[in-house]
Amino acid sequence: MEITRLEPGVKKGLVVVITGNGKGKTTTALGMVIRACGHNMSACILQFMKGDIYAGEWDGLRKLNRRVELISTGKGFCGIQGNPYPFKEHRQNAQDAVKLALQKIEEGLWDILILDEINNALSLNLVDLEQVLDIIHKKAADMHLVLTGRDAHPQVIELADTVSEIIEVKHAYQKDIEPQPGIDY
Amino acid sequence: MEITRLEPGVKKGLVVVITGNGKGKTTTALGMVIRACGHNMSACILQFMKGDIYAGEWDGLRKLNRRVELISTGKGFCGIQGNPYPFKEHRQNAQDAVKLALQKIEEGLWDILILDEINNALSLNLVDLEQVLDIIHKKAADMHLVLTGRDAHPQVIELADTVSEIIEVKHAYQKDIEPQPGIDY
Repeated sequence: MEITRLEPGVKKGLVVVITGNGKGKTTTALGMVIRACGHNMSACILQFMKGDIYAGEWDGLRKLNRRVELISTGKGFCGIQGNPYPFKEHRQNAQDAVKLALQKIEEGLWDILILDEINNALSLNLVDLEQVLDIIHKKAADMHLVLTGRDAHPQVIELADTVSEIIEVKHAYQKDIEPQPGIDY
Repeated sequence: MEITRLEPGVKKGLVVVITGNGKGKTTTALGMVIRACGHNMSACILQFMKGDIYAGEWDGLRKLNRRVELISTGKGFCGIQGNPYPFKEHRQNAQDAVKLALQKIEEGLWDILILDEINNALSLNLVDLEQVLDIIHKKAADMHLVLTGRDAHPQVIELADTVSEIIEVKHAYQKDIEPQPGIDY
């Protein structure tokens, strides 16, 4: 059997939104990084809010190659699960991450830029709608931009090319099963 | 800021189903492989049906480490997009993949076994419900089993711990944008 190698006639950098309350938003974005590596593309992941709890992707991505970069900029999910940091500090972290995102766009080194949890950061007022729209408008035509996190803003969805909503049909925590490494973090 | 390292009191191999018509099922599973690598866990991915079109994960996963294995067993999606192979051949490929899945379970070498597109293969009658239930029942208690593909069977969902349904809110193909490397394959 011959293997087909697809090659789009027109290369286009997409805006992709992965939202919803179900498991799989960040993991979808990480899977795109694996795909990108198989096409010799570079990928940069900026994690909003995350940064306080070790996740498998921190070391996992390092094993891919030097054209993959992961920066976790946060101090955990603002206002939930007994997170000890004040809103002001979370907002400052997220504002720094916005600056970093614009810098990464300007660098022009990245085929894919993933802004993990930015939808969530927007709905929590850690970043402003204008800032997210500005990022989308400033992205290069051939760079893919992936925005993850629950509660994606309607105006962000409006601007996106591909939008998936992940619905939680059921989750192991409902049976009091703790988060498991490799699957949940 | 101190980094928290979660460690579940009880380690449990989960059954995870990723279904729905939206983009992100296989990519979610690939993201779990990155996570697994960051926890020094092994992962084996058996792709049902896929195997005829190059996808970024084929080479991307190789860059991770030797404890990651990807086997694409198929000849494309049965009965769609002008796929030239007869049903009988697709079914034989899927039956071989079922045998391989049972063998991988028996080997006991894998922390995560991903059966990519098996839900789809079941709904297309390339594999039988009893075979999928058999795989779920035979898995070791500490091995995670991930079943992807649209139209997951209700009895499979019933047995699963975590189930996400990915809804297509919109997709670039609706604007006649071709599949893009790194994102779509």
